[in-house]
Amino acid sequence: MANKIRIGIAGYGNLGRGVESAIAQSDDMELIGVFTRRKPEDLILLNETVPVYSLDTVQEYKDKIDVLILCGGSKNDLPEQGPALAAHFTTVDSFDTHAEIPNYFEAVDKASKPNETTAIISVGWDPGLFSLNRLFGEAILSEGTTYTFWGKGLSQGHSAAVRRVPGVKGAVQYTIPNPDAVDRVRSGSLPELTTREQHTRECYVVLEEGADATEVEQAILTMPNYFTNHDTTVTFITEEELQRDHAKMPHGGFVIRSGKTGDGNNQVMEYSLKLEDNSEFTSSVLVAYARAAFRLNQKGDFGAKTPFDIAPGLLSPKSAADLRKELL
Amino acid sequence: MANKIRIGIAGYGNLGRGVESAIAQSDDMELIGVFTRRKPEDLILLNETVPVYSLDTVQEYKDKIDVLILCGGSKNDLPEQGPALAAHFTTVDSFDTHAEIPNYFEAVDKASKPNETTAIISVGWDPGLFSLNRLFGEAILSEGTTYTFWGKGLSQGHSAAVRRVPGVKGAVQYTIPNPDAVDRVRSGSLPELTTREQHTRECYVVLEEGADATEVEQAILTMPNYFTNHDTTVTFITEEELQRDHAKMPHGGFVIRSGKTGDGNNQVMEYSLKLEDNSEFTSSVLVAYARAAFRLNQKGDFGAKTPFDIAPGLLSPKSAADLRKELL
Repeated sequence: MANKIRIGIAGYGNLGRGVESAIAQSDDMELIGVFTRRKPEDLILLNETVPVYSLDTVQEYKDKIDVLILCGGSKNDLPEQGPALAAHFTTVDSFDTHAEIPNYFEAVDKASKPNETTAIISVGWDPGLFSLNRLFGEAILSEGTTYTFWGKGLSQGHSAAVRRVPGVKGAVQYTIPNPDAVDRVRSGSLPELTTREQHTRECYVVLEEGADATEVEQAILTMPNYFTNHDTTVTFITEEELQRDHAKMPHGGFVIRSGKTGDGNNQVMEYSLKLEDNSEFTSSVLVAYARAAFRLNQKGDFGAKTPFDIAPGLLSPKSAADLRKELL
Repeated sequence: MANKIRIGIAGYGNLGRGVESAIAQSDDMELIGVFTRRKPEDLILLNETVPVYSLDTVQEYKDKIDVLILCGGSKNDLPEQGPALAAHFTTVDSFDTHAEIPNYFEAVDKASKPNETTAIISVGWDPGLFSLNRLFGEAILSEGTTYTFWGKGLSQGHSAAVRRVPGVKGAVQYTIPNPDAVDRVRSGSLPELTTREQHTRECYVVLEEGADATEVEQAILTMPNYFTNHDTTVTFITEEELQRDHAKMPHGGFVIRSGKTGDGNNQVMEYSLKLEDNSEFTSSVLVAYARAAFRLNQKGDFGAKTPFDIAPGLLSPKSAADLRKELL
């Protein structure tokens, strides 16, 4: 192996930790450092020999880093950090506010192109791998319908909403694809499904002492946008049960394209993920796309990109000739 | 829509017919003509207004065709036709002799590059979409195992082998993934599976009059390479049943990548196809990649390519901006 790809991590929450772990599984990469807005000495890394720096000093490491992987959040961090850092580094991020992607793409593109960096945005599984499968589905089966199901998975936004209900001490919320709806889609019958038919929601709630269970349940079930459009169950559990049985962050889902070709033949393409740890998987996708970002930048392909723009072969550490021989 | 992409079809068997049908579903393409080695007047097209020409005259249509889709077979047609036609046309083909792909790639590359054409080889589902998913799987989950299961599907090679047994009047053979093996793989337990454990084979056989069923069954079950490594069942049926119940060409299968991240979390990626008509689906993939071949050639990206080299966005008739907005 020639020189390793030198990676920096900007932001060290679940995603940053997952990226550190995924780089350790990648022989062609080395981690140069982690950059944080917290006090560097407060961070405890998986590998304590990796240096931690203040994010304010990141520009000093411009010549030491090939790709900076942005591990901040889409709501507060990336809208500012994405364009600012893409002006100095080749970057990869997991920007996932679907409605804001076009604006974010433009902002990152403006920052990266004149500075001859390459920035791959919206990497992960949705947006990311699920988006790719939506694209393959409709490009190949032009007459058909695409269905996306999420779960079984822990929804962070909905869990937080339940925790805001007065009387709730702790809670998690799982999104569950309705198995009947999934079966109907897989059969090729092209059903029209309402929001309620596609997913159900399960809440596991620890009550504050003295809280009224019936009131809490009603407050959850009638929360507009979050729960009124879904069949929702609320199960009350103890704090010990919450910690013992609900500490993992599983997720996943399905993208199914059901279409017809020729004289009405049903063709069904399905992509599914079953993830025990959502963040670690997203991190692994980020690391594979960091390899692609490095290669694109090396050959002078600058500006903002999305997974739609990336030839799959660029994700693999193997040469194009080896890929043709071993995987095609 | 600007000018349509002008397509020619070389070879008109099941695949060529499927391509004709898929182009009719694609608003951005028009079919200029079908080129055949048979007598043109003997061909009956789905759309009888499409002209049929002798393949010997194809070079006369060089300026009228943007992409020639090669629909010949991998064994006898493509090894010669692929390089010969790529010297004059931008092409797409479904070359599927896995072991010969590296040599075929080199031959097509040598023919296309100096002539400024673009040639995408080995397009379809395996090789093709399954290959892409093997690549995504190992690039993202670097510690793990990839499993490919085929079926339930009609195997043309094995069906032909059964039909060669003396006493057999007609036959089909289905390859069936073993559901227990699939479940074990999906569970993330990373099983080591023998060939026998992965697939079973089912033969449906019509006997010649007076043939001995026991002898025929034994001849099938003991056929080296084809059946001795698999649990195989032979069911005798009537000619009417063969025509009524076994005339379709279903196929499909699964690519499953099961890997571990972080502190031993199981992550499972699965891609599956359930196809009522194998050829028509392969044809639909060819047509989507014809769009990519056209675009690559337009921007001066010449030579042989495989699906590994093709950015997914090039497959869609939508613009990059629309894809970001609608599908990411």
